[in-house]
Amino acid sequence: MKFTNTRTVRIEWGDCDPAGIIFYPRYFHIFDASTALLFETALGMSKFEMFKTLPFSGFPLVRTQARFLRPTRFGDEVRVESTISFGRSSFDVTHRLSLKGELCAEGNEKRVWTLRDAHGKLKSHPVPNAVLQKFA
Amino acid sequence: MKFTNTRTVRIEWGDCDPAGIIFYPRYFHIFDASTALLFETALGMSKFEMFKTLPFSGFPLVRTQARFLRPTRFGDEVRVESTISFGRSSFDVTHRLSLKGELCAEGNEKRVWTLRDAHGKLKSHPVPNAVLQKFA
Amino acid sequence: MKFTNTRTVRIEWGDCDPAGIIFYPRYFHIFDASTALLFETALGMSKFEMFKTLPFSGFPLVRTQARFLRPTRFGDEVRVESTISFGRSSFDVTHRLSLKGELCAEGNEKRVWTLRDAHGKLKSHPVPNAVLQKFA
Amino acid sequence: MKFTNTRTVRIEWGDCDPAGIIFYPRYFHIFDASTALLFETALGMSKFEMFKTLPFSGFPLVRTQARFLRPTRFGDEVRVESTISFGRSSFDVTHRLSLKGELCAEGNEKRVWTLRDAHGKLKSHPVPNAVLQKFA
Repeated sequence: MKFTNTRTVRIEWGDCDPAGIIFYPRYFHIFDASTALLFETALGMSKFEMFKTLPFSGFPLVRTQARFLRPTRFGDEVRVESTISFGRSSFDVTHRLSLKGELCAEGNEKRVWTLRDAHGKLKSHPVPNAVLQKFA
Repeated sequence: MKFTNTRTVRIEWGDCDPAGIIFYPRYFHIFDASTALLFETALGMSKFEMFKTLPFSGFPLVRTQARFLRPTRFGDEVRVESTISFGRSSFDVTHRLSLKGELCAEGNEKRVWTLRDAHGKLKSHPVPNAVLQKFA
Repeated sequence: MKFTNTRTVRIEWGDCDPAGIIFYPRYFHIFDASTALLFETALGMSKFEMFKTLPFSGFPLVRTQARFLRPTRFGDEVRVESTISFGRSSFDVTHRLSLKGELCAEGNEKRVWTLRDAHGKLKSHPVPNAVLQKFA
Repeated sequence: MKFTNTRTVRIEWGDCDPAGIIFYPRYFHIFDASTALLFETALGMSKFEMFKTLPFSGFPLVRTQARFLRPTRFGDEVRVESTISFGRSSFDVTHRLSLKGELCAEGNEKRVWTLRDAHGKLKSHPVPNAVLQKFA
C-alpha cells in the first residue's frame, strides 16, 4: 500500500546559512511538514484534528537518513514528493526534493504511531484501520 | 508612498511549542519572508536576483516591535498583510497576521537598505530610485 | 522588585543568514531561553519543573520590541543580561545582548502568567506569591 | 586517525514541539554546531577564523543518518560526544547524544571540504595537511 503527495515549498532567506545555501537541518523541517500534509491529504483532516478525532498522540521518528545532491538557495521553489508505506504500528516516508526537475535532496524516515498510556508516556500503537483505509 | 502585499502561511507543527501554540520567534521568520515577498512582488525579481542585479547588500533590521493578541496553532492558515513605506535609506514594514478575519499578531519593522563598502562592511545607502519607482 | 541574570551564548553558523550575520529572529530564540533561565535561577527549578510544581501553564508574550545596533556573527560569544520586573499577572523582561562590552541588541518583552481553565484555554493569572518571593 | 570532542547542550523550550519533546530537526542544529566546535577544539580557531585563514569555503553535508532512541525535553542537559575520521576530501562525524548516561539520539554525517572555484561554485578539495595534522 503506497500513497504519494506532492507540494511546492519556497526556500527562504532565513533557511539559508552564510554559504548562501540552505542550512541542511531546514530540510528536515520541510520533510516533517510534508509528512503532516500527506496525512492531511489522505485523511481530509489536519494533524491538529487528528489529535482530537483519532486514537493518536503523534508519530515521532525512530530513524531517518538523507542525501544532499545539489544545494538549493533562497528564492528557489522546490517540489517535494512524499511517498508513504505502512507497517503495523510504524510507517516509512520517502521525500524527494527537486528543483526544475533535478533531484536536490532525498530523505527517508521511519516513524511510529503512538498513543499516550495511563502515565502520559508515548507508546507505539497499531495504525488504526480507519487510517489505513484512507490510504488504500 | 505605500504598497501592500498579502500572502497565506500555514502554521506547522514544528513552529509550535509545548503549549501547543506558535513559538513567537517563528512570527519573525514569517515576517521576514513576507518582507522579501513584498519586494519580489513589486520588483518582479526574487531577493536572490536583487543581490545580483541591484546595488544591494541586504536590508537588515534596525528595530522591530510586535503585539500578540490571539494564539495560532499548527494547521492554521493565516493571512499576512504587509505594508511598506519608504524613507530615504530606510523603510518601515507593518505586518498584520490574521486568522479567519481576526487579528492574531501585528509587527512593525524598520530596516535599512545597505551596500558593502570597500572593506566588505554593510553601510546604509539611499534606496535606489529604480526600486522606489516600482512601488509607486 | 528587580532581578537580573546573565549568561553567555555562542552564536552558531546555523543562526546566521547569507549576509554572514545573525538572522534576527534568532535573537528572540535567545531571549526566550534567557527568560526561562532567569526563572530557573531565581526559583531553583527548570521551566519543566515549574509546570509540574506550580500553578503555571506558561508565560506567553503579549508584546515585544527590539533594537539591533551592531551585527553579531558565528563564533561570537555574546553576553545576555536579562532583568525582570513584575506586575500583578504580568511581567517585563529586558535583555541586553553585548559583545566584548559593546551593546549589539536590546529587547524588551511583556509576558503574562497563565493557567489553563476548565476548557484547556490559557487564562492570565496573578503571579503566585511563592514565585514573587523568590525574586525579592 | 580519530578525534573526539564532547560538549553539554541545554534543550530549550523553543526546541520542543506540542508533544513536549524535542522537535527532531533540532538535533541536526545541535549536531552541526558540534561539528564546528570539534574543528575549533582541534584547530584552536573558530569556523569564522577558518574562512579567513585556511583554504576553506565550508564543509556541506553529503549525507546523514540518525536514530532516535529516547526523547529529550526542555530543561534536559544533554551530552554530545562527536568523533571525526578523515578521508581525502571528505570526513565522517558521529554524534552520540545522551542524557544521564543513556543514549537518546545518534547521528552520523558525511561532509566534504570545499573551496570556491573561479565562478564562486563550491568544489570539493582535499582536506589541507595543516588541518589533518591538528587532529593527529
